[in-house]
Amino acid sequence: MYEGRLVKGHRPIITLTTDFGLKDPFAGIMKGVIAGINPNAVIIDLSHEVFPQDIRGAAFILSISAPYFPAGTVHAVVVDPGVGGDRRPLAIRAGTSFFVGPDNGVLSWAFRDSAPVAVRRIIRPEYAMPTVSATFHGRDVFAPAAAHLSAGVPIERLGPAVDDPVLLPFPLPETGDGEIRGEILYIDRFGNLTTNVRSEAVKSVREIIFGDARIGRVSKSYDEGRRGELIVLPASSGFLEIAVNLGNAERQTGARIGDPVSVLL
Amino acid sequence: MYEGRLVKGHRPIITLTTDFGLKDPFAGIMKGVIAGINPNAVIIDLSHEVFPQDIRGAAFILSISAPYFPAGTVHAVVVDPGVGGDRRPLAIRAGTSFFVGPDNGVLSWAFRDSAPVAVRRIIRPEYAMPTVSATFHGRDVFAPAAAHLSAGVPIERLGPAVDDPVLLPFPLPETGDGEIRGEILYIDRFGNLTTNVRSEAVKSVREIIFGDARIGRVSKSYDEGRRGELIVLPASSGFLEIAVNLGNAERQTGARIGDPVSVLL
Amino acid sequence: MYEGRLVKGHRPIITLTTDFGLKDPFAGIMKGVIAGINPNAVIIDLSHEVFPQDIRGAAFILSISAPYFPAGTVHAVVVDPGVGGDRRPLAIRAGTSFFVGPDNGVLSWAFRDSAPVAVRRIIRPEYAMPTVSATFHGRDVFAPAAAHLSAGVPIERLGPAVDDPVLLPFPLPETGDGEIRGEILYIDRFGNLTTNVRSEAVKSVREIIFGDARIGRVSKSYDEGRRGELIVLPASSGFLEIAVNLGNAERQTGARIGDPVSVLL
Repeated sequence: MYEGRLVKGHRPIITLTTDFGLKDPFAGIMKGVIAGINPNAVIIDLSHEVFPQDIRGAAFILSISAPYFPAGTVHAVVVDPGVGGDRRPLAIRAGTSFFVGPDNGVLSWAFRDSAPVAVRRIIRPEYAMPTVSATFHGRDVFAPAAAHLSAGVPIERLGPAVDDPVLLPFPLPETGDGEIRGEILYIDRFGNLTTNVRSEAVKSVREIIFGDARIGRVSKSYDEGRRGELIVLPASSGFLEIAVNLGNAERQTGARIGDPVSVLL
Repeated sequence: MYEGRLVKGHRPIITLTTDFGLKDPFAGIMKGVIAGINPNAVIIDLSHEVFPQDIRGAAFILSISAPYFPAGTVHAVVVDPGVGGDRRPLAIRAGTSFFVGPDNGVLSWAFRDSAPVAVRRIIRPEYAMPTVSATFHGRDVFAPAAAHLSAGVPIERLGPAVDDPVLLPFPLPETGDGEIRGEILYIDRFGNLTTNVRSEAVKSVREIIFGDARIGRVSKSYDEGRRGELIVLPASSGFLEIAVNLGNAERQTGARIGDPVSVLL
Repeated sequence: MYEGRLVKGHRPIITLTTDFGLKDPFAGIMKGVIAGINPNAVIIDLSHEVFPQDIRGAAFILSISAPYFPAGTVHAVVVDPGVGGDRRPLAIRAGTSFFVGPDNGVLSWAFRDSAPVAVRRIIRPEYAMPTVSATFHGRDVFAPAAAHLSAGVPIERLGPAVDDPVLLPFPLPETGDGEIRGEILYIDRFGNLTTNVRSEAVKSVREIIFGDARIGRVSKSYDEGRRGELIVLPASSGFLEIAVNLGNAERQTGARIGDPVSVLL
C-alpha cells in the first residue's frame, strides 16, 4: 500500500463493487443511502459491470484493488445471487481495511494474505434501513453498514462473531518437474489474459505454452512484441499476463477463464 | 426516506440522470460546471445509460431513487429530445427535494405522492452559463441551476412560476372482478420485469398470468424458485416483479415494456 | 470558462479520461491512489470508454471538456499504447489548467489556443508509486503526479523541462473558392457527427454537402428538422454538427470519422 500521504484528511472512503450495471440506478441509490448516513464519506466505484452473479470475477477485482486504498477504507461488494435467502451478510476487518458483502466468498480473496481480525454477521437493525427488502440488500443492509463503519461505528456493534465465513478457493498453480501449471484467472477489457502464476515465481523461463502458442521469454512491456504477436509479461496485478501488442489476446486466441497455461522453467 | 443521519454534514447532493451515455464527456462537463459554481456539492450519478430520449424510463429511475436521498438533494434530469425548442426548463421543489429538467414530464413521477410546492421556469441568465447553446442545456442551463439551488439560491429567483407543468401519465393498473390488470413498467439489467402493481395491493393471490405462464404464488426471494423457474416477488421498488432465479426473465419470456400482466386475487 | 463561482472552496479537481472501460477496476484503483495522496481532491470522470488506444478521440474529449472546469483543475489522460516503452510521461501547465498523460499527443489539443507555460517530464520517484510497473502507469505514475499537483506541488519538481512534446496534428478544414472543405472529427453516442468546421466561421451558407445529402441551411435546434431529416446545426462544442431530429445520423448515413464534408458559402 502506498503510504506517502501528503495531505492529512479525514474523509473516509467507501468503494463499491457490484454486478448492478450502469443502466439501472441501483448503485446511485446505495450512494444516496450512504450520503444520508455519513455525508463525509467519499464513494469510489471499483466496478458495477461485474458479469451478473460472477462471484469469482468480483473477488479478483476486489483483491487487486484493495491494496491501493488508504487505511480505513470500507469496501462494499454486492454480487449476491442468494439475496434474501439464508446466506449471511458479513462485515469483516482485515489489516487496515473493512469489507462488507454477502457470505458467499466474494470478499475472501481480499484477505488471503492477512487473516481477518474480525468477522461479524450484520444483524443489528439500527445499522440497516428501517425496512429490509428481500431483493436489494445493497441498499438496505450493505450500504448502511458500510456508511456506519466509515463513520467510526465499531465493527463489533454490527452483530455477532462468525467463525466459519465462506472462503472461495483460490486456484493456485501446481508446481513440479520444472513446470508451473496454471490457468487463466481473469480477462480484462483489452483482452489481456491474467494468469494465476505470480510474476515473482518466474525468475527465468524456457518456454510458456498456451494453447497452440509457445512463447520463449517474458517481455517487459507490450511494445516488445511485434504487432499481433502473443507475448507474456508481468502484469500490474502481480501475475503473469498473456497479451498482444496493439491487439486483443482474448479475441486472437479464443481464450476463456480457466484455460490452462504451462510455464517451463 | 431514511432519516438516521449519524454525522451532521453540509455537503449538498446533486444527482444526475441522463441519456448521455458514458463514452462522451457530457456528464463530466456538467460536473465541471457544477464544481465551478458550488465546489462543495457532492455529485452522484443515478444513470447516464437511459435509452436515448426514453422519458418514461428516466421518470421511473428518478421516482424509485429520490426517496433514498437526504433532504435538500437536487435531482437534475436531462433526457431532452426537445432541447433548444419551445419546451421550458423547470426547477421544482416537492417535499424536501429539488428537481431540475426539461418540461416534458420526466420529473413528474418523482412527486406523484407529494404535490410540488414550487414550479419555476428557469430563465434568469445570472443562473445559467453566459452563452446558452441550442443543443446542450444540461451544461448551459440545468447544471448551473442545480448548482445554484444546491448552494442555497431560493428557487423563486430562477424565474417565474409555472402552473401547468407537463405531467407524464402514470400507467395505473385496473382493478375489478377479483383481478388486477397491470403491465410491465421497467426492465432492469438482470432481466427482472417490474410491473405497475404495488406489492402492498396484493395480500393474497390465486394466480398471476403473464404470457403463457401461470404463477401460483408470490415468493419472498429469488432463491425460492428452481433454477429457470418464473417467479413473482415484491421488488425493492415497491412493485411486484417477475423474475427467474439465477436466470433472466426478459430473455426467457421475450417480455417488453407495456406487456400485460394479470393478478387474480 | 465559466468564472461565476458562487461559493469559495478549496477542493481541487482531478479529471480522468482513459480507455480502461468500466468492467475492470483500473479507474477505481487510480482513484484509490489519488485519495491516498490528496484526500481533498474531487475526482470527476470525463470518459473511461474511449475506444482502446484511440488517441485522437481522447484528445477531442479533453479539448471540449477542459474549458468548463475551474482554474487549477488537473486533467489526467491515460490512453497509452506505448506504456512501459520509451515514450515520456508528461505534466503540462497551460492557462490555469494542468494536464498529465503520456507524450503521444493526447494532451495537445487541449492547449491549442494557449501555449503551455510549463512542460515537464515526470521522473522524480518521490512523486510516483514506490514500484512502477511496466503496464499500468495510470496507477503508478499519472495518478500520483495528478494528486501531487492537485495538492500544490510545483510542476517543476516533477522532473526536467521538455521542449519538444509530441503534438497531434489537428485536422483544420481547407478554405477557398467560396467553400470550406472539412471532415467528420467525432461521433457521439446519439450518432451526431461533429465536423471540424467552426460554427462561427459560417455566417451564411449556400449548401452543405455530405455524402449524397445536400443541406440548404444551418438550423438552430434539432427540432427544426422533420423526423428523419438530416440537418446541420451549431454544436455545443463550437463546431458544426450533422444530426437527425429524433434519429441517428451515424446509422442513417453510415458516416465514419474522417469522412469529408463541404460547406458552400
